[in-house]
Amino acid sequence: MLDIAVIGAGRIGRIHATNASRHPRISLKYIIDPVDAAAAELASASGAKVADLEEALADPAIGGVIVASSTDTHLEFCKRATKAGKAVFCEKPLDLDLGKARAASAQLDNARLFLGFNRRFDPNFRKLHDRIHSGEMGPLETLHIVSHDPAPPPIEYVKISGGMFKDMTIHDFDMARWILGEDPVEVYSTATAVVDPAIGAAGDVDTAKIVLRTASGRICVISNSRRSGYGYDQRIEAFCAKGLLRAGNTLSSTVESWSEAGSSTDPLQNFFLDRYADAYRAEMDHFADILDGRALPLVGYDDGVSALAIAEAAMESHLTSAVVRIRY
Amino acid sequence: MLDIAVIGAGRIGRIHATNASRHPRISLKYIIDPVDAAAAELASASGAKVADLEEALADPAIGGVIVASSTDTHLEFCKRATKAGKAVFCEKPLDLDLGKARAASAQLDNARLFLGFNRRFDPNFRKLHDRIHSGEMGPLETLHIVSHDPAPPPIEYVKISGGMFKDMTIHDFDMARWILGEDPVEVYSTATAVVDPAIGAAGDVDTAKIVLRTASGRICVISNSRRSGYGYDQRIEAFCAKGLLRAGNTLSSTVESWSEAGSSTDPLQNFFLDRYADAYRAEMDHFADILDGRALPLVGYDDGVSALAIAEAAMESHLTSAVVRIRY
Amino acid sequence: MLDIAVIGAGRIGRIHATNASRHPRISLKYIIDPVDAAAAELASASGAKVADLEEALADPAIGGVIVASSTDTHLEFCKRATKAGKAVFCEKPLDLDLGKARAASAQLDNARLFLGFNRRFDPNFRKLHDRIHSGEMGPLETLHIVSHDPAPPPIEYVKISGGMFKDMTIHDFDMARWILGEDPVEVYSTATAVVDPAIGAAGDVDTAKIVLRTASGRICVISNSRRSGYGYDQRIEAFCAKGLLRAGNTLSSTVESWSEAGSSTDPLQNFFLDRYADAYRAEMDHFADILDGRALPLVGYDDGVSALAIAEAAMESHLTSAVVRIRY
Amino acid sequence: MLDIAVIGAGRIGRIHATNASRHPRISLKYIIDPVDAAAAELASASGAKVADLEEALADPAIGGVIVASSTDTHLEFCKRATKAGKAVFCEKPLDLDLGKARAASAQLDNARLFLGFNRRFDPNFRKLHDRIHSGEMGPLETLHIVSHDPAPPPIEYVKISGGMFKDMTIHDFDMARWILGEDPVEVYSTATAVVDPAIGAAGDVDTAKIVLRTASGRICVISNSRRSGYGYDQRIEAFCAKGLLRAGNTLSSTVESWSEAGSSTDPLQNFFLDRYADAYRAEMDHFADILDGRALPLVGYDDGVSALAIAEAAMESHLTSAVVRIRY
Repeated sequence: MLDIAVIGAGRIGRIHATNASRHPRISLKYIIDPVDAAAAELASASGAKVADLEEALADPAIGGVIVASSTDTHLEFCKRATKAGKAVFCEKPLDLDLGKARAASAQLDNARLFLGFNRRFDPNFRKLHDRIHSGEMGPLETLHIVSHDPAPPPIEYVKISGGMFKDMTIHDFDMARWILGEDPVEVYSTATAVVDPAIGAAGDVDTAKIVLRTASGRICVISNSRRSGYGYDQRIEAFCAKGLLRAGNTLSSTVESWSEAGSSTDPLQNFFLDRYADAYRAEMDHFADILDGRALPLVGYDDGVSALAIAEAAMESHLTSAVVRIRY
Repeated sequence: MLDIAVIGAGRIGRIHATNASRHPRISLKYIIDPVDAAAAELASASGAKVADLEEALADPAIGGVIVASSTDTHLEFCKRATKAGKAVFCEKPLDLDLGKARAASAQLDNARLFLGFNRRFDPNFRKLHDRIHSGEMGPLETLHIVSHDPAPPPIEYVKISGGMFKDMTIHDFDMARWILGEDPVEVYSTATAVVDPAIGAAGDVDTAKIVLRTASGRICVISNSRRSGYGYDQRIEAFCAKGLLRAGNTLSSTVESWSEAGSSTDPLQNFFLDRYADAYRAEMDHFADILDGRALPLVGYDDGVSALAIAEAAMESHLTSAVVRIRY
Repeated sequence: MLDIAVIGAGRIGRIHATNASRHPRISLKYIIDPVDAAAAELASASGAKVADLEEALADPAIGGVIVASSTDTHLEFCKRATKAGKAVFCEKPLDLDLGKARAASAQLDNARLFLGFNRRFDPNFRKLHDRIHSGEMGPLETLHIVSHDPAPPPIEYVKISGGMFKDMTIHDFDMARWILGEDPVEVYSTATAVVDPAIGAAGDVDTAKIVLRTASGRICVISNSRRSGYGYDQRIEAFCAKGLLRAGNTLSSTVESWSEAGSSTDPLQNFFLDRYADAYRAEMDHFADILDGRALPLVGYDDGVSALAIAEAAMESHLTSAVVRIRY
Repeated sequence: MLDIAVIGAGRIGRIHATNASRHPRISLKYIIDPVDAAAAELASASGAKVADLEEALADPAIGGVIVASSTDTHLEFCKRATKAGKAVFCEKPLDLDLGKARAASAQLDNARLFLGFNRRFDPNFRKLHDRIHSGEMGPLETLHIVSHDPAPPPIEYVKISGGMFKDMTIHDFDMARWILGEDPVEVYSTATAVVDPAIGAAGDVDTAKIVLRTASGRICVISNSRRSGYGYDQRIEAFCAKGLLRAGNTLSSTVESWSEAGSSTDPLQNFFLDRYADAYRAEMDHFADILDGRALPLVGYDDGVSALAIAEAAMESHLTSAVVRIRY
């Protein structure tokens, strides 16, 4: 069994701890969190023990560490775990500050850091990616990503989130890079705060359309909203030379009603932890393969930096109403 | 141009008269109806003139007659028009009395009588039929026909309709024969009057499930209701050795809404004259081809008798709660 | 934790053992199987130990037993476990012999026997059931169940299966009873062996349409095939006075392609263990509730007998080509 | 009856002539085309007579003129018909030159000129428009228009088309204005010639993404391709505060197949004259209402100028890679 520690007993930490504890090849040994009660509760629920980071890193049995703490601690914990020789599975984003993220290159740009862009592990999007790259539909020409959340986060979270582009669109930037198969070189972004004036007052936006263009001329449009009004809208359409490949939403059940008003489905799955439950499990499989030496991380440090670089350029485009060259 | 006369200025007569008047190869010359005002109104709207049947049949320019009068007059008008050497396009059913319909064999079983089972001319069902018979999915094994009306007809109509099996299911019996490509040999039918007690009081039923079985072992299930509660439900599923071919309903528009309650479409097309508008136009094309000598009727006298024979057997099965051998 | 034993290390036993081993309230203690290697392998994989039945039943810590052995042993193991005071979760069917099943009434018709009709625990069908019974669409009038397998089982299995009605349709009979909310009183069934002549040679059928009718006049049609050609087709349509409620199939992904040939989805989920994975987990939750004393079995001995009684009547109807009164 | 003349016997002229000849309130009197044979053929097919423009305009019985000639003649014929006191139904675009179109303001900005932006008359898009404007989903926030053609036009046509923005996107600019309910004030456009290098060599593009922004902050994304590879893709999604309203594509039939490869529909309707057949008929109804004095044109001169102004700004944005302020 592959012994690991989880840093962070919050929402996403609990997901990873649960998946690790049920994984046939992984043994979850330590939970680390500055809030003792949270650490204790998660340790109890997942059959692990509470530890502090030094203890966990000093344990030679520990092969890997999952960094699921607050964003501002990601880089520091990644560096320490890497230095201790552990494989690392770090939640996105690497950091909110592109400069700080870049400065960690020497320590983190390696073959043992796995950055958790979970959507790459969603079975639907992975299948879409693979079919696009199989060439069955001819070359990919343009891409549409719709990524609308059911409802905005609390305004307190918004204020420390780094802004919508780094907090939410960062996933879509990563998806765009992954599916396009090349880096966008310029970005145009236009955004508003129409969902909640408090978001605007906090200097952030909640609605955006972003256009990315690659060196070879591929174009990607991203649509974002912090509040859809109809659940968690996660769709991708890939326009290829011979046709369209698309991946759609998942409904909460297959039940439909037909009445004189028309036919109605059940709602979209509404919560990202449900929508991406399979993806989180697949991430844990991938981390087990990294721990085992069977695989190199499919997503790593440089992917985290690139997504951040696009997010900064998108923000600049929004603020200047101009097309911005992306500096990686 | 091919000159024709239309007998009957009621609902279906108006459909045929309008389609005939707009047809590039047909010229609608006469409207015949015992109700003078109805005849006059339709003649005016369709650019024809009012006539009586003798006059129309005596006119050598008239090549064909559309019989869209009340059911009890179908056989008589078909015989007279046939005797006068006209091609005939007769509405279904031939008659409500199987014995009377059979007795007309000598006069009507010919190459110039076209019986208007409109669903065979629906582009969707025709495409389904053609794909089934192309063999692309392997041999047809079983068939499901769902045929539910939006709402029951007036009780006065129900009383003279000949009963649901002869009035409504007759279409489905014809579709079954056409798609199965062979005649069913036995039928089981179970039915209720749950939509409207008045229908039951009138000795009729409004809800039925009917199972047909052919000599070669193919099985067809028909589902009928006089009232769906959700529009005009017209679906066929053909289970073949290699997979399923199906034809579905048509919606009144492509507009959808997605809200927290789920996604909703517009209603099904609700009225048979809308749902089968293309089919009625295609019937007129076919009648023009018959008038021209380019085609023999795709549906004729014997199809009308066969559908009636199945309807009588289905009624007997319902009344006796037994499986009934069909006597053609 | 609630300690349990699993009898049977075959396909379905492995499913239940895995779900039990991952369940937060259940502790899987023993695996029992006459094939030592199978028992040992499953015990190892699920963290349990191999035992014989006497040992397991004698252990006072064991609160419940899952009977997932071959069908002909179900009744015997259920009786022994019940006699030992254990709660029982028994796989369907109770037995292939209705008389033997009935004879066990005194021992098994109790509040601690849970019969595993898994489809009642499928979230889609459960939601459908609940919405039908909520009355939102008015009274249920008729019901259509389509239940087609992807491919027939091996002919050796077919020969000992008790026939399609007891082996496969038994699920649909249970669904019909559950959704109709009342017992059917008569059945008509017509069937063929068109999928594989060897099935016919073995005296069984592979394709059937079955019509059930309840005392109150509700009608249910069941469609069965041992081989769909297009995956695992599991659909239910409930025609109510105010409209239609239906539950559909689940696809293997949300990916679609659109080309000049039309649009294409991914295949249906093809394997019952995938299609009903959530249902099997929900069954384990329910069994934990029974063990805990929080719940009485939602499906029990009498449900097993009733489904068998319908299956025997359906077989008789098929063999006699007559409508058969069901004797419960 | 309302007598009219049609100028132009090409593809779109034939559509309008046919619809006019079948319209119950319109009488098609003259066909005008410099190519005598084309004029004669269409006149014969539609029951009209060939005329020259002077003759038609001098005929006091003629209430209206349909201008369906080549684009460079639109302004001239509109002016002459208007001067002669006729109502005008002019095909889009008004002209390829914004300056020339603007210069015609004094003569054409009146209550008797109907500009044929046919998509406003599509029943699906009209229903979408009406539901958005009903406010049922709350305020409209952003809009996505997908408008991809099945295949590019001949390169000779491309060269004289005025470029994709004026020839094809012009429809989408009009739809955007109509549905947004306000004029966009700035545009960003990025485009390529990836479908056919000859289009690029001719100085045109065949693939574009365009972002419009209104004064109130509404954002609209338009996606264009001259070749979809999967038929005529015409979709609109309107993201409102309470949910999504969308209108989708129309398929060539309702037939589906399900096999081990998945389920497949028939192709999208592939040809704009089929896809928008209802829209062209509805345009003729509207023109009859204008001729009758029952209605003012729903789309007029200023709409034509505005769409052209957006097209010019979009072209400038594409050429300069900058966001461009639209000058109306």
